[in-house]
Amino acid sequence: MNFCSHCGSAALVFRVPEGDNMPRFVCSNCDTIHYQNPKVVVGCLPTWNRQVLLCKRAIEPRLGLWTLPAGFLENSETIGAGAMRETLEEANARVELGPLFTVISLPDISQVYMMFTARLLDLDFGPGTESLEVRLFEEDEIPWEQLAFRTIARTLRSYFLDRKDGQLGLHVSAIRRRAAVSPAMAAAA
Amino acid sequence: MNFCSHCGSAALVFRVPEGDNMPRFVCSNCDTIHYQNPKVVVGCLPTWNRQVLLCKRAIEPRLGLWTLPAGFLENSETIGAGAMRETLEEANARVELGPLFTVISLPDISQVYMMFTARLLDLDFGPGTESLEVRLFEEDEIPWEQLAFRTIARTLRSYFLDRKDGQLGLHVSAIRRRAAVSPAMAAAA
Repeated sequence: MNFCSHCGSAALVFRVPEGDNMPRFVCSNCDTIHYQNPKVVVGCLPTWNRQVLLCKRAIEPRLGLWTLPAGFLENSETIGAGAMRETLEEANARVELGPLFTVISLPDISQVYMMFTARLLDLDFGPGTESLEVRLFEEDEIPWEQLAFRTIARTLRSYFLDRKDGQLGLHVSAIRRRAAVSPAMAAAA
Repeated sequence: MNFCSHCGSAALVFRVPEGDNMPRFVCSNCDTIHYQNPKVVVGCLPTWNRQVLLCKRAIEPRLGLWTLPAGFLENSETIGAGAMRETLEEANARVELGPLFTVISLPDISQVYMMFTARLLDLDFGPGTESLEVRLFEEDEIPWEQLAFRTIARTLRSYFLDRKDGQLGLHVSAIRRRAAVSPAMAAAA
């Protein structure tokens, strides 16, 4: 943020506004306070009998790796509508949403993932513009080493564990950036 | 949004960027796309035995009405940490969070509420700068006609119903703006 989006002034100061306790971009010209807040990522884990639908990413980040259909919640949208829209956009798939399944905070990148379970309504799916390939996987076929994001791996792991237990729960958690490991530490490990 | 926050140009156009399907503010000078997304409101329903803690708002909107401690999730924060921070700020109260309890989409104002149940750790609470008064209420004392927001009323109603059933669940829902009712329609109702 280099300029005030309200008045166009370059006189932005990053400071704690009066009555606040966090620093914000404040315009010294028109006094507008520019708040920045986390974004919500919504998506789902679509299933067909015992199989799970994954999408191979056609875009960065993580081009070529596998993911569940998910993306940024848009203004004027409910979380359920957003999850279904992303599934349609990325996998051309129509689903009936089940319960909210994982809620994962990513404080290092200021995102909150909200993933639903979902049931594919038909097998008439295929890659949207952001996917190279879309297909169904049995549990033992999941490409664990080729998953795009830790949120996706965690959601899939929770799903298969819950399925073994016979009951899907809600999983609220957080994922933090992995600590950097020096070559010496890695060698010692 | 009148000016590009990246380059300061006033040449903003509200249009659908290439490869996108929603209109965004796009800078014709530097090509920056300015995405706007929903905000997350986090908070909790603090209890002490059978009583629930409410805060009387000292600020607009809804000054003088009662609410649960809640506010905007900040960057770099998990949803649980945000809920506890808001509870400390608005009620000077320390809580142990319970499970996530309500997730309510408000598409008309592009917000998602996420409320936890919580247990007060002590009775050493009191109004923060955004509250006029903080006190505990038995169920039959709740000022239902003096609640600040429909999200709060829904969270409290769900809590008392679940408590009667002996089990707290997760409640995912949406609240839309009430349709305007003409005086004639109101009279006929």
